[in-house]
Amino acid sequence: MSTQRLSLNRWTFRTTPLQEFLETTVSHGIESVGLWRQDVAEVGLDALRRRVDDAGLRVSSLCRGGFLTASAAVDRTAALEDNRRAIDETAGLGAPTLVLVVGGVDRADKDIVGARTRVTEAIAELAPYAAERGVTLSIEPLHPMFAADRAVVSTLDQALDIAEASGNPAAGVVVDTYHVWWDPYLERAIQRAAAADRLFSYQVCDWNLPLAAEPLHSRGYMGDGYIDFPSITRMVAATGYTGDIEVEIFNEDVWATPADDAARTIAERYAELVLPHA
Amino acid sequence: MSTQRLSLNRWTFRTTPLQEFLETTVSHGIESVGLWRQDVAEVGLDALRRRVDDAGLRVSSLCRGGFLTASAAVDRTAALEDNRRAIDETAGLGAPTLVLVVGGVDRADKDIVGARTRVTEAIAELAPYAAERGVTLSIEPLHPMFAADRAVVSTLDQALDIAEASGNPAAGVVVDTYHVWWDPYLERAIQRAAAADRLFSYQVCDWNLPLAAEPLHSRGYMGDGYIDFPSITRMVAATGYTGDIEVEIFNEDVWATPADDAARTIAERYAELVLPHA
Repeated sequence: MSTQRLSLNRWTFRTTPLQEFLETTVSHGIESVGLWRQDVAEVGLDALRRRVDDAGLRVSSLCRGGFLTASAAVDRTAALEDNRRAIDETAGLGAPTLVLVVGGVDRADKDIVGARTRVTEAIAELAPYAAERGVTLSIEPLHPMFAADRAVVSTLDQALDIAEASGNPAAGVVVDTYHVWWDPYLERAIQRAAAADRLFSYQVCDWNLPLAAEPLHSRGYMGDGYIDFPSITRMVAATGYTGDIEVEIFNEDVWATPADDAARTIAERYAELVLPHA
Repeated sequence: MSTQRLSLNRWTFRTTPLQEFLETTVSHGIESVGLWRQDVAEVGLDALRRRVDDAGLRVSSLCRGGFLTASAAVDRTAALEDNRRAIDETAGLGAPTLVLVVGGVDRADKDIVGARTRVTEAIAELAPYAAERGVTLSIEPLHPMFAADRAVVSTLDQALDIAEASGNPAAGVVVDTYHVWWDPYLERAIQRAAAADRLFSYQVCDWNLPLAAEPLHSRGYMGDGYIDFPSITRMVAATGYTGDIEVEIFNEDVWATPADDAARTIAERYAELVLPHA
């Protein structure tokens, strides 16, 4: 069973110790992992890089920067500073891209349009810093279910508008099936992203129903929900995308499964539903 | 306190007996109600019309037709037949428009694109029937959170594409703040709807967090959540929309509130957050 181009996202295995996660990845013939800043904080940047190198793995992305919607100057400055550190960490891990979850609406003013403007300005400010360090910024449109509390960027087209407004080729997008599968203009937007050389990452997991009590945790193994992985993967492949394909699942049941079993299920579903179309 | 153009949707008061609902509406100086087919089924079309007339009320809309995504011929025929009955009921109540929730994805094929094609074809088939009876069809884009199980139409632009594909002026859209507030292209889409003479209804309620266990029931009184009602209402008003503004709230707490209290809260919030901008 081929696991070519498959990358396991760390948060899919958040309950597994880091070393076990890396070893599980290797034991399934998988060559790449998506890491989180929590890993950097836990073991330190250099030690984390060494562990990944020693395991013979690549880092497909670092998750996550963002949260750029604050309007107070002091909060905005702190957010930009934190994102510069995240960019440094991305470069330090040899990862090509930093994933950005842009932040939600301030309930005090409910000004979603203003929040988007601040995101656009912040990304324009961060993109040159990323470019200088050889990494890209992957703006992640989140499912509109999270527009209030996590991301005022809800569609791929909107993320591309923001990336293009930066005027910098280091700003682009990540396509995560969970967040964009419902978009009636998805194929057109994927083509637009690739044509602009701004399609930096492809992530897969399914949309499960009923929603979990914490909706963030409704992500499922490919095949368990409603998403048409062959069709979306073909849209991505048709643009010439040849990068890693990360599996990022937040799901209480998956977290309760032994890592080896979860990795096996992911590899099987990937080989069945994704890779043949990639 | 002015309740001009305010309409109370029946489902906001689903736990209240019909007659009490109508009397509560009148007692707050409200002139219009949005009804559901369940009311028709319960008391009969003619009797329902008489009760509404006797109360001196208008019917702003009937909810709901739709569920047009089935692929089997027998299911499709049944759905069209049921929608024709819903159109007849709309006309029989003197309501201007029938609200359509188009239906979700068949989990067996996961073919969201095919489901949308069937919706487009069905609405083109139903629109002339509606036009002949003097009613319009309001396609309701539902929040993408419901794309899997309730509506493969998720944005106002997409609903307009479908309405325009019918080639019939009787097909149009309803703007429900709960479903579309997050849309980065909302203002443009509202303008497009109005320019095409296809903006048939405006409905308001808030987006509350955390989501209810049944996400459908996360709708709240205006002001309780994250939606910027003044801004969205101004977008609608700027197009020249002068129709009713329906308040449709599905919320366990509201359903547990005495109808008179709930109507008072709605009237207050409407007068504060919506009407001054309408």
